[in-house]
Amino acid sequence: MKQSVLYVPTLKEAPSNAEVKSHRLLARAGLIKQTAAGVYTYLPLGIRVMQKIERIIREEHDARGCSEMLMPALQPRDLWEESGRWDDYGPALMRLKDRKERDFCLGPTHEEVITAIVRDYIDSYKKLPLALYQIQTKFRDELRPRFGLMRGREFVMKDLYTFSTDEADLDRWYATMMTAYTEIFRRSGLETKIVASDTGEIGGDQAHEFMVLSEVGEDTITYCDTCDYAANQEYSALSEGDSCPHCEGTIKTAKGIEVGNIFKLGTKYSESMNAFFTDADGQRKPLVMGCYGIGVSRTLMAAVEQHSTEDSILWPDSITPFDVHIVPLKGNEDLGRRLHDRLATQHEVLLDDRDERPGVKFKDADLIGIPWRIILGKSTKEGKAEVVNRRNDEVQLVPIDDLEVYLSGQ
Amino acid sequence: MKQSVLYVPTLKEAPSNAEVKSHRLLARAGLIKQTAAGVYTYLPLGIRVMQKIERIIREEHDARGCSEMLMPALQPRDLWEESGRWDDYGPALMRLKDRKERDFCLGPTHEEVITAIVRDYIDSYKKLPLALYQIQTKFRDELRPRFGLMRGREFVMKDLYTFSTDEADLDRWYATMMTAYTEIFRRSGLETKIVASDTGEIGGDQAHEFMVLSEVGEDTITYCDTCDYAANQEYSALSEGDSCPHCEGTIKTAKGIEVGNIFKLGTKYSESMNAFFTDADGQRKPLVMGCYGIGVSRTLMAAVEQHSTEDSILWPDSITPFDVHIVPLKGNEDLGRRLHDRLATQHEVLLDDRDERPGVKFKDADLIGIPWRIILGKSTKEGKAEVVNRRNDEVQLVPIDDLEVYLSGQ
Repeated sequence: MKQSVLYVPTLKEAPSNAEVKSHRLLARAGLIKQTAAGVYTYLPLGIRVMQKIERIIREEHDARGCSEMLMPALQPRDLWEESGRWDDYGPALMRLKDRKERDFCLGPTHEEVITAIVRDYIDSYKKLPLALYQIQTKFRDELRPRFGLMRGREFVMKDLYTFSTDEADLDRWYATMMTAYTEIFRRSGLETKIVASDTGEIGGDQAHEFMVLSEVGEDTITYCDTCDYAANQEYSALSEGDSCPHCEGTIKTAKGIEVGNIFKLGTKYSESMNAFFTDADGQRKPLVMGCYGIGVSRTLMAAVEQHSTEDSILWPDSITPFDVHIVPLKGNEDLGRRLHDRLATQHEVLLDDRDERPGVKFKDADLIGIPWRIILGKSTKEGKAEVVNRRNDEVQLVPIDDLEVYLSGQ
Repeated sequence: MKQSVLYVPTLKEAPSNAEVKSHRLLARAGLIKQTAAGVYTYLPLGIRVMQKIERIIREEHDARGCSEMLMPALQPRDLWEESGRWDDYGPALMRLKDRKERDFCLGPTHEEVITAIVRDYIDSYKKLPLALYQIQTKFRDELRPRFGLMRGREFVMKDLYTFSTDEADLDRWYATMMTAYTEIFRRSGLETKIVASDTGEIGGDQAHEFMVLSEVGEDTITYCDTCDYAANQEYSALSEGDSCPHCEGTIKTAKGIEVGNIFKLGTKYSESMNAFFTDADGQRKPLVMGCYGIGVSRTLMAAVEQHSTEDSILWPDSITPFDVHIVPLKGNEDLGRRLHDRLATQHEVLLDDRDERPGVKFKDADLIGIPWRIILGKSTKEGKAEVVNRRNDEVQLVPIDDLEVYLSGQ
């Protein structure tokens, strides 16, 4: 892909409202652009990373018997009256009227809609369990939108809903999704800790959050450095300096960015919305539900927060927008195009074909953060390219004819 | 994929408000479910078809130098004041206020947002041309939402915007996208005609629509049966019975469903929104724009309208949700599972693992419309399966061990 065609509007200065590193970098590297407070456009580099995260999410969900669907953003007031949340939710729920003065909200979450979808069809235990998810745009009118994609008003989430006959089956789904989430974040290159949490506006019986450790996190958590679990600050089981009953490591305190959450909803929505089924013994029972969210756009933000310095992103391999960045300097433009076409058969290649000074090209390449950089400069006279492995900043002069072999050996 | 896990809530009766065949079939076959008037959920079979259409759209756009991005649904009033459309657009524009009483609309189209995104960065002819598209959810408060996905209030569209230095470059993009659209609809299994149209609420200089011929179309068009072009009813160049100056065929009249449209916007938005660049001769000029839409959800609907009878869809190969439908009858459940796992390495396979009578399974399979059906019934005693090619309703008894070879030879 040619950089001139892709549209990568890099900036010298971060927007003045960008308070955290990931926001500054996502804006400067041309991945996002603010359209209104808390409302962002994902530019071509940004959407490529998001789509890679989405692919990992789909694979880990599909492999566990979940099915994808797509629910609407517009949700009628009636459904929210049934659950009682029209009144309970508060001003974060964006509300509007249609041309006939009927009330709608823009979904921050989809418990009502999914419950209405399955209640008409799931009449018997034979049709259970069921696990349905979507990757979809959500709305939440935050009082103080900030930190770029961390606290936005329009954002991309994956939300999964499970429907079980009983608590034991819900427990199985809950454990399954805890594993799935651990795997999704690990594959996305993120280190996360799992924290027990309260159930908030969603309601229900039990909940956990997945936290990315980061100095810009909004929650303080206490965790053991050798295991996956952590606790909220208030949570008494762990205290800094102690060793935890379930693990061997040291207890530490840090800030966390919440990238995922899982909830045992129980029968809160099925009872209020009349979603019942007939069990094997002929009894009419409410569906037992769970819900499981991942902030897709927030995961993108957290990945940048964890994998960057102030002037440079360095993408994990699994979610990098491109694998190889070819940067031809003056006089090597044609060679750059030929090399791009050669390597593009095996790699995702970005070619900096802009008419810019070397300093500008290198600075932008640092910002954009592609793991392998191939500089076509003076050494092309000897048939060689300068290959930079950005993971360790090692530079090798590699014969241009051998680049495929060199890269595939890495 | 197991049908019990996928969630395919087939219905015996179509919803009472389903006036057209595609709406009845999409609902009965468990592809969509209405959440509010003109607002639909895409169930797992529905989203699979949509994603296949989206893949074709992405391939044909990426191959022509277009880059994908994702813009927000929430659009601030300020931008629409700049273009003058806040007042012009009328009640189809869904409007809302945020918690601080600031005005927003839910985007029915994104000329304002994209113009604001590129105007800050495109300062020179060196950065042009540029072609940016998204596949995104749009909102339009139709006075009479109807015909299912045909006239919805929330719908999925692909919208592309091109930015050129001059009219000649816009003409090139316009011609390129006309070819791309023809190819996209052809690959999706749809027969379309191209019709010159007026520019409506979008504005601009010239426009064409892509029409799927269908008795439920909302527009009447006059077309030549041997070429790609057609005309609106009002358009005087063609009249029924005549032979057209540009083609050899016969002129006919039919109804059309608009699935795509392309507009030469010219400088309407760039002049009103101050999106200027400096040309090679140092002159400051407004960007010359084009916009190009495809109704993704409407394409799904039009495909069903063209490829179905009243009780049965028959998907084109390119967008079918699955290739092979295995229907095991009583006693062949285990064989069904084994065959599913075998064939799933080479095909997209749906297994009807439900505990239902043969009549129910066959009726649902007809509804769902997968091109190849493998029935595991009596003949499994002789090691054979009944293979139905739904394109011609030909039935073959094929040894179960030879099914891979049989299917790959088709």
